[in-house]
Parts: sequence; structure tokens; C-alpha cells
Amino acid sequence: MKCMSKIEDRKNLVESFSKENGFPIYPANGNPAVRCKIGTPRKELQKTSPKLVQLEEAIRLSGLKNGMTISFHDHFRRGDKVVNLVLDKLGEMGFKDLHLAASSLNTVHEPVIEHIKSGLITRITTSGLRGELADAISHGILEKPVVFRSHGGRAASIVQDIIHIDVAFLSSPSSDPLGNACGYRPDLKSICGSLGYAKVDAHYADKVVILTDGLVPYPNTPFSIPEDDVDYVVEVDSIGDTTMISSGAIRETQNPRDLLLAQIAANVLINSGYLEDGFSIQTGTGGASLAVVELIRQNMIEKGIKASFALGGITGHMVKLHEEGLIERLIDVQSFDLVAAESLNKNKFHQEISANEYASAFQTGSAVHWVDLVILSALEVDVNFNVNVLVGSDGIIRGAVGGHPDTASDSAMSIVICPLVRGRFPCVRDEVTTLVTPGKAIDVIITEYGVAVNPNRPDIAERLKPVRTIKLVDIHDLQKKALAIVGEPEPIPWGDKIVGVVMNRDGSVLD
Amino acid sequence: MKCMSKIEDRKNLVESFSKENGFPIYPANGNPAVRCKIGTPRKELQKTSPKLVQLEEAIRLSGLKNGMTISFHDHFRRGDKVVNLVLDKLGEMGFKDLHLAASSLNTVHEPVIEHIKSGLITRITTSGLRGELADAISHGILEKPVVFRSHGGRAASIVQDIIHIDVAFLSSPSSDPLGNACGYRPDLKSICGSLGYAKVDAHYADKVVILTDGLVPYPNTPFSIPEDDVDYVVEVDSIGDTTMISSGAIRETQNPRDLLLAQIAANVLINSGYLEDGFSIQTGTGGASLAVVELIRQNMIEKGIKASFALGGITGHMVKLHEEGLIERLIDVQSFDLVAAESLNKNKFHQEISANEYASAFQTGSAVHWVDLVILSALEVDVNFNVNVLVGSDGIIRGAVGGHPDTASDSAMSIVICPLVRGRFPCVRDEVTTLVTPGKAIDVIITEYGVAVNPNRPDIAERLKPVRTIKLVDIHDLQKKALAIVGEPEPIPWGDKIVGVVMNRDGSVLD
Repeated sequence: MKCMSKIEDRKNLVESFSKENGFPIYPANGNPAVRCKIGTPRKELQKTSPKLVQLEEAIRLSGLKNGMTISFHDHFRRGDKVVNLVLDKLGEMGFKDLHLAASSLNTVHEPVIEHIKSGLITRITTSGLRGELADAISHGILEKPVVFRSHGGRAASIVQDIIHIDVAFLSSPSSDPLGNACGYRPDLKSICGSLGYAKVDAHYADKVVILTDGLVPYPNTPFSIPEDDVDYVVEVDSIGDTTMISSGAIRETQNPRDLLLAQIAANVLINSGYLEDGFSIQTGTGGASLAVVELIRQNMIEKGIKASFALGGITGHMVKLHEEGLIERLIDVQSFDLVAAESLNKNKFHQEISANEYASAFQTGSAVHWVDLVILSALEVDVNFNVNVLVGSDGIIRGAVGGHPDTASDSAMSIVICPLVRGRFPCVRDEVTTLVTPGKAIDVIITEYGVAVNPNRPDIAERLKPVRTIKLVDIHDLQKKALAIVGEPEPIPWGDKIVGVVMNRDGSVLD
Repeated sequence: MKCMSKIEDRKNLVESFSKENGFPIYPANGNPAVRCKIGTPRKELQKTSPKLVQLEEAIRLSGLKNGMTISFHDHFRRGDKVVNLVLDKLGEMGFKDLHLAASSLNTVHEPVIEHIKSGLITRITTSGLRGELADAISHGILEKPVVFRSHGGRAASIVQDIIHIDVAFLSSPSSDPLGNACGYRPDLKSICGSLGYAKVDAHYADKVVILTDGLVPYPNTPFSIPEDDVDYVVEVDSIGDTTMISSGAIRETQNPRDLLLAQIAANVLINSGYLEDGFSIQTGTGGASLAVVELIRQNMIEKGIKASFALGGITGHMVKLHEEGLIERLIDVQSFDLVAAESLNKNKFHQEISANEYASAFQTGSAVHWVDLVILSALEVDVNFNVNVLVGSDGIIRGAVGGHPDTASDSAMSIVICPLVRGRFPCVRDEVTTLVTPGKAIDVIITEYGVAVNPNRPDIAERLKPVRTIKLVDIHDLQKKALAIVGEPEPIPWGDKIVGVVMNRDGSVLD
């Protein structure tokens, strides 16, 4: 800043100074990012945003090549239209050998079968599989095994670059032409609420394509995904069916057995020592889990206590308690129904978080580490308290790992609700068909025949023992009882092929 | 997932499968991040959060070494207490040769002089310097020149790892023990509003220390900085004086000349062709700039038009228009007064953004690219429309680059308000003392003696020409007029030493 008499002298001084100090010397060219006709009003200029392209162009510009990894989120659950749309386009463009890294796949993704057959998709990473696709994969249609990860495991793997996403195709109910994207802007065609899984992909993928059926003018605030995470914005007719976001995993139960299980679970919670002022909770999406919430609500009102936060998978049930003032804050990685999705827009203390903030095993502050109570469901449990939520007792994949192992491992107390038998299959077994959540993470198993407390949690057993209305049983007795009811099930006719591998949330192989 | 009869067999199968597929094989050890006594209620456990440490321990754990770069934000402006606090501690611990990379430095940072003398601080990167420290540096106390960058230039340099921050020390008015940090939570000791500059540091620094005088229970939602960006949380008595956030750059003007300049500027804006429904605007913090807002407000009400957004440095003036429904959205990288800071908590469409989203030259979607009108101030302008906002005409540093070159370069129309003379110094000069914003980025210069339009914007001149109440003049005539009033100023007694270097927003050396 030494002043010279002539601009030229100053330029020379600056250049020699830059060289000495290793600063870059290149001509100051104004604005490297956007060059536009001087003076165009910005609302007009937005319409020609360089990010706003057609899907095929976005794919071309992204530099996607055969063998690469593409990712999707499942916030629309079985209402999703984007996986099929993008895969069809990629097939049409002649791509091969892609790795499909979805946060989860659902019944709607049956067309993926054809893309596997055509060689477009050769590897799959997901949290879950359901329907025809799950069936086909269970029967070995995919050469390489599907890799299953929990929500937290997936996020951690992306952050640690174990899953390297080349191109993320992320649907968003609203986006401006620059890529500020939000899942819960009201009065648009679609809404899915939290974009918690997508946030991780958006931040770590090499290239990010936002697909939207709600293109709005800049600035689309508040946003879930900021523009600086986004490379391209593609407008499409429809990204998903909003009415389906509450399906897939959630069932409102009328089933008397579920209601009985819920009653037992609530009784356990209330007497666990954890349901005190300032507690925190996450519930799964099984019918019984949801029914528990209403029962806890009654107890909270009676005792005059409040929860500090509810985590998850937020449902309308939790929103109700929040709006009643019974739960101070909602922490939301995925909105499980329309009420929850709309609440994000309405309620200031309903906070959207990324899957990494939700459930990474490697983040001291990830939310699962700070939740007291989790209520989960199971397809099967075994005498070592291991849980399977992924594969039916018939050996067919029909579920999702989800946040099960994440929340079970890190909470103060984890409760699994599981009926003793389902049809002709025992649900309390000698060994689970597939290990998803290790037994050491499960504290209590609730069945209609009694409550089994993990022997490594004598403190819980101690507190439940005096409660006359809770029948404590040994897990082995439950297993014998189940066998006595349905008899030893036929062994599953397994083939020799490994069709899937379940990764532990820390990145090691579990099963 | 092929089922084997024995757990042992399954383990072997899994291990050989992992080896074949290159999956990591290490024992599933539950939770790598937090190990805690099983069953401790989480609200109790929070108190022993492993992130919650004393300052000295945070420094030690951060791995800071001599020669490294430390960073700070200036959201408390001249009320900041954290720079001095941390530098004192670092001095006490015997550190040397550190690079101080602050978003800006202010009058309160006079003690930095001693830390320069002691050898603790040997390099400084900042947006601005004021007061005794600026004076000392202007007189050559620091061996290496201070590097000045705009807000956008700083953010881009951090993102591109040109500035590599080893440890960021970031004050936050609230934080939970896990590091979720927010600048505008009400009812606490301090409030600074947006943490826009800090967000970039938090995300890109190797280690991040949050200093807070508002420790609150987990989860501190909504948050500005998420826990997964934070390594340590340090509780301190006071991080800053909230009453000072509106000082430093902002002056409410009673000065008749400022009011006259504001009137001329408003007249230019109203007739510029840009003040139409859906326009967007950013104003600087000079007294005249702020007075313009009130005048525009009147015009908007008369014409029945609304702005789509206001950007910046948000002030109470803009909040007022927002709450009146005249400005749809506020985009806030820094809250310039208490009204703005509180508005972030109150107004849903008042959105906090990072400095990278605000003003990076390399982000197509950064907000400065999408703003129509910016009104800026200047210490000096010259006949080539170049602007100096950093160095007084006496050669002493007394200002900040701020967002001046960012907003001027990328907006549809940039207006600089500058009195013709200040005291005995001409403000329209043959050549600016220090080049901060290149003339090609400046469209209109407003002085009390007339309005000069940059020759490269004939479109604007064309629209203003018919307006009887606007006196268009040649910039050279303004310069002559200024000279005629105060006479040729004494040449500045420059030494031979380069005390500062101004970087262009694209990373090249400007002056």
C-alpha cells in the first residue's frame, strides 16, 4: 500500500511483492462465477441461471462415467419418483456398471430390477429393501452383495469417504434456480419435510443435482441445502407423491396385540427411572411404538413433566406433544408423515438435522448419543438380545436397518417391542436370521408374554422388579414359549450365494 | 447374509467375505465417539461432555503449534472480548509466530500491538483495521504486511485452502456442551445475531473451539454452527459487549450533508429503472446509506411495490421494512445492530447465511450475484471510479474492505456515496490512496455537487438524464471542484515499507 505516483509503478510494485510473498498473480477479472449482461435486473437474470439445466445436460455436465457411484435420498419413501426417473435416463444414455448408493429403497423401486438385468446397476448400497426388488435381490439377481448400512453408518461412511459419491441426484420439493433447496416450503406441489439424509450427500458428493417440482424465485429461504452445495438444478414434473411419505414403515395400529405390547412398553418406560423431567426420546415407526407415545403423554401430564427433546423420524404424534408444550424441541432427520413435514415450516423449535448430526458413531455430539429412551421394533430377536429388522424369517429381505443400531447403541435405555410369534414363525429365536443390531445394545425386550431385561442391565431389572404389573422373564423362557406355540420352523432353503452384507455402524462388517 | 448354523461359522464367513471385498475388518466396538457409564441419564451426561474444557486445555488439545494460523470472527465488532482473551492466553502459554486471521479487527484490539511486539503475532489477515492497532501497523510495527481481503475473498480463500486455518476460536452467545452454537438465542447474556463469518471458519478449520458465555442444555436449536463442526466448547465470563455491535461502522446521521447525499442517492435509485416490484438491495453502514433506506421506503409505499430481499449487513432499518411487509426476505451474513440480531430469532424469513453463500466470487449462487442495488460509502474515489474504504487520505489505515468489492462487482447497479471533501482532504481524487474496489465495478458516484455515472454504464446515464432534479456531472469536474475547494493536499509522507496488501476478491493482489 505504499503509494506511488503512477498506476503503472504501483502495478509493478504489487507484482514483485506478490512474487516475493508467493501470492497468486493473475489478472483481476472481476467475477469468475457469473458473467452476465451488465445491468440485467436480477429477477430476470435468475431465469437464465447457469445451474438450471435439463436432466440429460446435468448428467453430461456432472462428468458421470461408467463404474461411478450415484446417490439418492428416500424422504418420499414409497412415493419417490426420482430414482426411477434418473435411472431410466441413465439407461437411455447408455451408462453401465453404476453403484446405486441410496439412503433407502422401497416397493416403488421395482424397475431397478430391469436396470440390474441391463447392467446399468451392478452394486447397491442402501439402508433397506422392500417389495419386488427386495425379493429379486433375495433370490440373487445382483452379482455383488447389497451393502446395508444404518443411517448413521451411511453418513459416517460418506464423511469418511468410504462411500465416495460421484454424483448425487437429490429431489427437493422446492429450490430456487441457484440451488437453495427446502423440503417443507408450503403451498407447493410436494412436501417431504426434513432433507436430513440428502444434506450429507449434498455436502460430500463431487457433483450435486437438485431435481425439483417446485422451482421458486431466489432466495428460497429458509433452506435445507445451501446453494454452495449444489451444481445443477433440474425442473421435473413430479418428484414424488406426498401422500406416501407416511407409508413404507408406519402403520397406525388397531391390532389388539400391538396395543397390549404398547401398554407393557409404556409401563416399563414409566418405571424405568428415565421418564423424568427433561428426558429425551425416540420412537420407531412400528404400530406398537407409536401407540406408546400416547400412553407416555398421559403419564407426563399426570406427573407434570416435560421432555427436552424428541428425536428421529418425527411423526405427527410427536408434533402433537410438542405443540402441547410437553416436548420442548423436535430434532428431525426424516419427517415420517405430513403433519411432521408441515410442522418444520410452522414450529421454530422443530429442527432439521443431517444424518451425520443425527447418528454418526464418530460424532461426540450426534443426537443419538444424547437421547435417553428409544423404542424400537423388530422382525426377530434372539436369546442374546440380537435384533433383526431387515430379513423376514423366511429369508426374504423386507425391511430396513434404519437408525436401529445407531439409536440402540447410544441411548441410555433401548427397548425393543417384538411379538412372540408372527404367523407360523417364532420371533424370539435361538439366533436371528440376520444380525442388524447387536444384543449388547439392546436393554429390554417387550413381548406379550413378558419382559426380558438384558443381564448386562441389572440396574433396569432392579427398578422393574417391584412393579406388580410387569412380568419379568428370562429371554430363554420366551424363546421356549415361542417354540412351544409354533414349533421348530422349517430351515430356510439358503443358497450358497451372499446376497447382502450388513455393515456395523462403525464401518466393519457385521453380518 | 447366508445363514450358518453357528455364530462362529458366520463370523468366519463374514471375515473372509470382508477380505475379498476390501471392507474394513475391525471389531465392532459399539460406539467409537462417546463411551459413558451405561444408563446415565443424558441430561446428567451432558455436564461431562468430552468437548467441554477450559481454554488452556482446548488450546493444548487442538495441537496448535508455533507458525500456525488462528482465526476469529468480528460479529461483536468493537465489543469483542475473545481475541484479546485468547491471545493473552496464547502469550502466557509461550506461543510464537502465529498468523492472526480475523474476519476483521477493531479499536478494541489495541492489545494486539503488545502481542506483535512480543513475537506472538507475526502475520495478520483481516478485512479491516481501526484505532491504535491500525495506527501502529500503518507506521510499520509488523514486519510482514497485513493482508486485507473482502468478506467474499476471505471466505473463498478459506474454502480454497489459500487461508488454511489450523485452529478457529469462535465466540458464540449460546452453545450446548456438544457445540451446537447460535448467535441469536434470546434471554442470554449476549447476542450478536448472525454468525455468518464464523460459519466458514467453523466448517473449514482443522480444529474449532467455541467460546461461550451462554452454555445451555443440549440441544441448542436452532443453531448457526452444528455440533459436527465443533471440537471443543469453552465457557467464559463474557465473550463481548452486545451494546457495541451497532458501533464500529454504523452511524445514525444527523449531519445535513449526509442527509442531502441520501436524498440525491434515493432520487438516483428511484429513477434508475431498478426500483421495481421484486427488486433486491444491500446498503452499507455509512450514515447516508442508512438514510437512503427511509427515503426508498416512502417511494415503495407510494408505488405499491415490494422488494424480494435485502442483503447484508442487516440493520434495524431493513428489519422494519421486512416487518412492514415491504421486503419479503432478509439475507444476513452479519447483524449490524441489536434489532437485526433479535429479528433472526423472531422472523422466519430473516435468514442467516455464511460468508461463502454471501459473497464468494466463485459461487454462482452467492447472494451478491443476485442483488440489484447496492449503496456503498467511500473514504475516497478517483476519476477512474476506483474506491478506497480502507486508508484515510492521511495514509493511516482506518477502515475495512468489508463486502465493498464483492457487492459492487456483482450487483446490477452499484452506487457509492462520497462527500466531495472531508476537512482539508479532497475525497474525489486523481488517484485513490489505496485501491479497494476497482472502478469498473462502480456504476454511480453520488456527491453533494452532482452525480457521476461510469461511462461504461450509458444505460443508467440515459435513464437519469431526463430527471430534472438530478445533476449529472463528469467525474473529472468533481475532482477539479474538490481541488478548487481544499487545494492540492500535501503528499503523504510514505515510508519505503509495505505495511499492507489488498487482495482482490478472486485471490490476486490488487494493491
